[in-house]
Amino acid sequence: MTAPNRNTLWARALVDELARSGVTAACVSPGSRSTPLTAAFDAHEDIHVFSHLDERAAAYFALGRARRTGEVTPLVCTSGTAAANYHPAVLEADQSRVPLLALTADRPPELRDSGANQTADQEKLYGDAVRWYKDLPEPEAEARKLRSLRTTVARALAEAEGTDPGPVHLNVPFRKPLEPVDVPGDVPDDLDPLAAEGRTDGNDGTAPAGVGGASPPAFVERSQGVPELPDTAVRALADDLGVERGLIVAGPADPHEVDPEAVVALAHATGFPILADPLSGLRFGGHTRVAPVLGGYDAYLDEAVTENWPDPEAVLRIGASPTSKPLRKYLARTGGDQFVVDPAGKWREAEFTATDLVVADPSRLAETLARVVAGPDSADWRSLWADAEQAHWDAVEGHDGLFEGGIVADAVAEAPDPTTLFVSNSMPVRDLDRFARPSPDAVTALGNRGVSGIDGITSTALGAGSATTDHLTLVIGDLAYYHDMNGLLAIARCDVDATIVLLNNDGGGIFHMLPIESFDPPFTGQFKTPHGIEFEPTGDLYGLDYERVDSREGFVDAYSEAVASEGSTVVEVVTDAADSHGTRDRLRERVVEELT
Amino acid sequence: MTAPNRNTLWARALVDELARSGVTAACVSPGSRSTPLTAAFDAHEDIHVFSHLDERAAAYFALGRARRTGEVTPLVCTSGTAAANYHPAVLEADQSRVPLLALTADRPPELRDSGANQTADQEKLYGDAVRWYKDLPEPEAEARKLRSLRTTVARALAEAEGTDPGPVHLNVPFRKPLEPVDVPGDVPDDLDPLAAEGRTDGNDGTAPAGVGGASPPAFVERSQGVPELPDTAVRALADDLGVERGLIVAGPADPHEVDPEAVVALAHATGFPILADPLSGLRFGGHTRVAPVLGGYDAYLDEAVTENWPDPEAVLRIGASPTSKPLRKYLARTGGDQFVVDPAGKWREAEFTATDLVVADPSRLAETLARVVAGPDSADWRSLWADAEQAHWDAVEGHDGLFEGGIVADAVAEAPDPTTLFVSNSMPVRDLDRFARPSPDAVTALGNRGVSGIDGITSTALGAGSATTDHLTLVIGDLAYYHDMNGLLAIARCDVDATIVLLNNDGGGIFHMLPIESFDPPFTGQFKTPHGIEFEPTGDLYGLDYERVDSREGFVDAYSEAVASEGSTVVEVVTDAADSHGTRDRLRERVVEELT
Repeated sequence: MTAPNRNTLWARALVDELARSGVTAACVSPGSRSTPLTAAFDAHEDIHVFSHLDERAAAYFALGRARRTGEVTPLVCTSGTAAANYHPAVLEADQSRVPLLALTADRPPELRDSGANQTADQEKLYGDAVRWYKDLPEPEAEARKLRSLRTTVARALAEAEGTDPGPVHLNVPFRKPLEPVDVPGDVPDDLDPLAAEGRTDGNDGTAPAGVGGASPPAFVERSQGVPELPDTAVRALADDLGVERGLIVAGPADPHEVDPEAVVALAHATGFPILADPLSGLRFGGHTRVAPVLGGYDAYLDEAVTENWPDPEAVLRIGASPTSKPLRKYLARTGGDQFVVDPAGKWREAEFTATDLVVADPSRLAETLARVVAGPDSADWRSLWADAEQAHWDAVEGHDGLFEGGIVADAVAEAPDPTTLFVSNSMPVRDLDRFARPSPDAVTALGNRGVSGIDGITSTALGAGSATTDHLTLVIGDLAYYHDMNGLLAIARCDVDATIVLLNNDGGGIFHMLPIESFDPPFTGQFKTPHGIEFEPTGDLYGLDYERVDSREGFVDAYSEAVASEGSTVVEVVTDAADSHGTRDRLRERVVEELT
Repeated sequence: MTAPNRNTLWARALVDELARSGVTAACVSPGSRSTPLTAAFDAHEDIHVFSHLDERAAAYFALGRARRTGEVTPLVCTSGTAAANYHPAVLEADQSRVPLLALTADRPPELRDSGANQTADQEKLYGDAVRWYKDLPEPEAEARKLRSLRTTVARALAEAEGTDPGPVHLNVPFRKPLEPVDVPGDVPDDLDPLAAEGRTDGNDGTAPAGVGGASPPAFVERSQGVPELPDTAVRALADDLGVERGLIVAGPADPHEVDPEAVVALAHATGFPILADPLSGLRFGGHTRVAPVLGGYDAYLDEAVTENWPDPEAVLRIGASPTSKPLRKYLARTGGDQFVVDPAGKWREAEFTATDLVVADPSRLAETLARVVAGPDSADWRSLWADAEQAHWDAVEGHDGLFEGGIVADAVAEAPDPTTLFVSNSMPVRDLDRFARPSPDAVTALGNRGVSGIDGITSTALGAGSATTDHLTLVIGDLAYYHDMNGLLAIARCDVDATIVLLNNDGGGIFHMLPIESFDPPFTGQFKTPHGIEFEPTGDLYGLDYERVDSREGFVDAYSEAVASEGSTVVEVVTDAADSHGTRDRLRERVVEELT
């Protein structure tokens, strides 16, 4: 590797090691201090650079991509407030275990806290939200320093993709010159090629190989184990699951978390139904043809219904805490053994009623348990759940009037095969939970349920879309759409197509569900916050087709057309939040009534 | 103070103490966990609530308001990523000493790190960027706890408005119920009224008084001193300034920093010219009629010019590091005694050539020094600078072709009296520095020069505008305009009018000034980043008039019309970044040639 100066060499070595380790894309925002990194990413042929002008949107885009792929996506920005704009996405990545790598350029040490321009304290900028933080040393064209750099890259990737995946922050100081200008003598001619250029594969150093495709092997190769229980613990757990009445509860999945086949095998071995959160990776897919995957619990797990049911004897929980509050409350009140399986050993169950923390990889554990568990089977237990499901889906499918949940259900039903479906927080994910029937369709449903913000949703969706050839559908409310309109620029700049279903109820519809609705003021002014924005000009601004519909049939037509056409389309559905809540309540009441 | 439950009481007491202490406005974003605070702010008649849907924009709006007024502006948001969206503005507030108060709602302790929804680690979320952080105790309707709350509020305001003003973060946990629902027994009937209701003024407790206007006195009154030098130090400094050739260099001002009369008096006493950064508070205003205020230094402080000049013997620096790089380099190479005056004792001079750090309030110091300094006067020295100024302004005013600096100069010249002028980072502030001639006009020029980001500019400007009856003009480039388009919503929601001068050169014009321009790729794709956005639809989206012009005359006409009309207008000027740089260079070369 030749380089005109130490900064260029340093950045090229860093990027080279990322590429050798399998990194295939990065999100870069323009800036001066980050010039060596930006130039190195731009020049590397194995890494695709997505250029983003708003660093908040950049970070969420990278989050979406890394959430979809499970692979580290680096971020590059200049010094100062740019780096702080990554913070919201870093929090989400922390809580939902998405591997991000924030590379923030910085001034060299003497210029920090000195009044130098565009300089903030970037040390540990994201606090405890990152798995690892390191302030890199100043670039040097010296073999040991370059080896330390490559080792740091390997360590950063290992931390980001480890048992508890998440964000990593490397702060990268540079002093001028930042550009690849020739600085005679800055890079010694006899620099150790291993450190500077990395390993070669074979003798001639030209044969490509490595995780990422074309790149040669990494300087430091990595392999990552997953926690597995000892045999005695597996047998004990299998005994505990050898009961008549049990449940498998799958919450929102971490990237790469769940192998549906393993969970299905366990469901068959135990006879337990699978209560599949829409973001669990288990609600949709071919496995639903053969496994008891349930999705209506959010409606029928009402106390009036379940007080006549026997309690489950054992519950195996995988993934994060479920989106459904009725489900969480049900699990809290029914007792029995409750096993929280978490590969990182974290407690993701805020009712504090689980009885066992099982630190193990859920897919491996399910696979193992399926082979050893043996217990009595209860057809009664299963039909209790199956009947409740049937009652719910009959009610839902018998209602064709306009309401937000119906639109979400239609979008899932009409989505082409395969689809990556991203749903916003606030109501869309809850509507997906309650109204999207389990199906064999190849739908990968994603959301930001780590911290459940309404910021950065569009960018996250587009980042996820950038990683696949799936069709991409985003279902989003008006506040979230407004919050990240800047993210729409990625449709053109990053060449990602999407169908965006905009559920516009002019403000925070979710607040109608909360007791504050009865107090006005402040309800309308500070919670509902109607804004009256006509979003149609965003079509012109970002080069999108824009359709507005006001019925279920109109939506299905417009959505189908949008999906079939080239380019990206916003399908705006104007809804009334209070009406939609009324419909949700009525449908739920009908089911509860039928089941009691 | 009556309250239906402890949360409501707690939030009302907190807001009551803020109002009693003089807080008159707050920026609130919708969310559930923050309900008690939001309801209390909304209900308080002495505090104006600005409702913002995007927390990043909210924080910058509050920053702008606090920058313009020097008074603490509280921010209220829900838990999770919302709070992280404040981080960019918090960094800017830290570096530019603007008093913000971030009130972030949080889950109670047991729900943190438990898998509970919308929960992130908010402890010390902004690291060392805040003057003070405190995680408030859980609300209790108990006299001592309520006194501690009021005391905490007083302390927070004191930290935010102290000798080194800046942001403060209070994390505020609440457990349900969050709404003002009646919880029998939650608030004792015999609660100490002093703690619950605050002090009353006089015997009947009804007479209004206090800092903020209508509110009664604060529970804890505050008074704030400023650092003043002992007499011996003043005399020594006066001796050092008693020389023939000296300068007063005024960098960007902290809020409330500089009394122009005091600095003018010192300039007269010493015979030193004032080199006034456009954000120093000294470039514009009535005092320029009587004081030697210079503004062309960015053009003529070229080494070819100054090598024939005698060096200054003494330089007194106030404010932050000047925007002008030629000025900073000049100060670094000319030697002499160089006094950095900073009330907070921070070193804001990144050339490290200053010789003395003077920890004192600059206005008080200038006033004191003006009375005691006595020294030889040098008409030669003053005319050296006056001639250079004349050459520069002759060159600038003799050029009426379209370039970005000319538009900035025109905007200043045509601005109505009085105007708050907010300039974006990147090129607008540099153009203001070089091309806006010192004048007696009542122009308050502001910018975000703490960290110099291009994010949040529109929101900061509108926040500043919300605090005055001045006309508000914002001069902004296209990247910064794009970055904070969400901020435009405040025009309608917060009822602030502005004339927005959008200098659209389709990308990062400033990078043409940097050596990376010679390396393409990556120059165009990763630095210049042309985006091709047609911004006109933002007019429809946010209810603004939108004009596009392509000449100086066209701009003056459109700007004058915009200023005279009701509502807000964007005046877009399409410029060519490379051409504008060419013009800047030619004008500078002409001046340098004339002076050498």
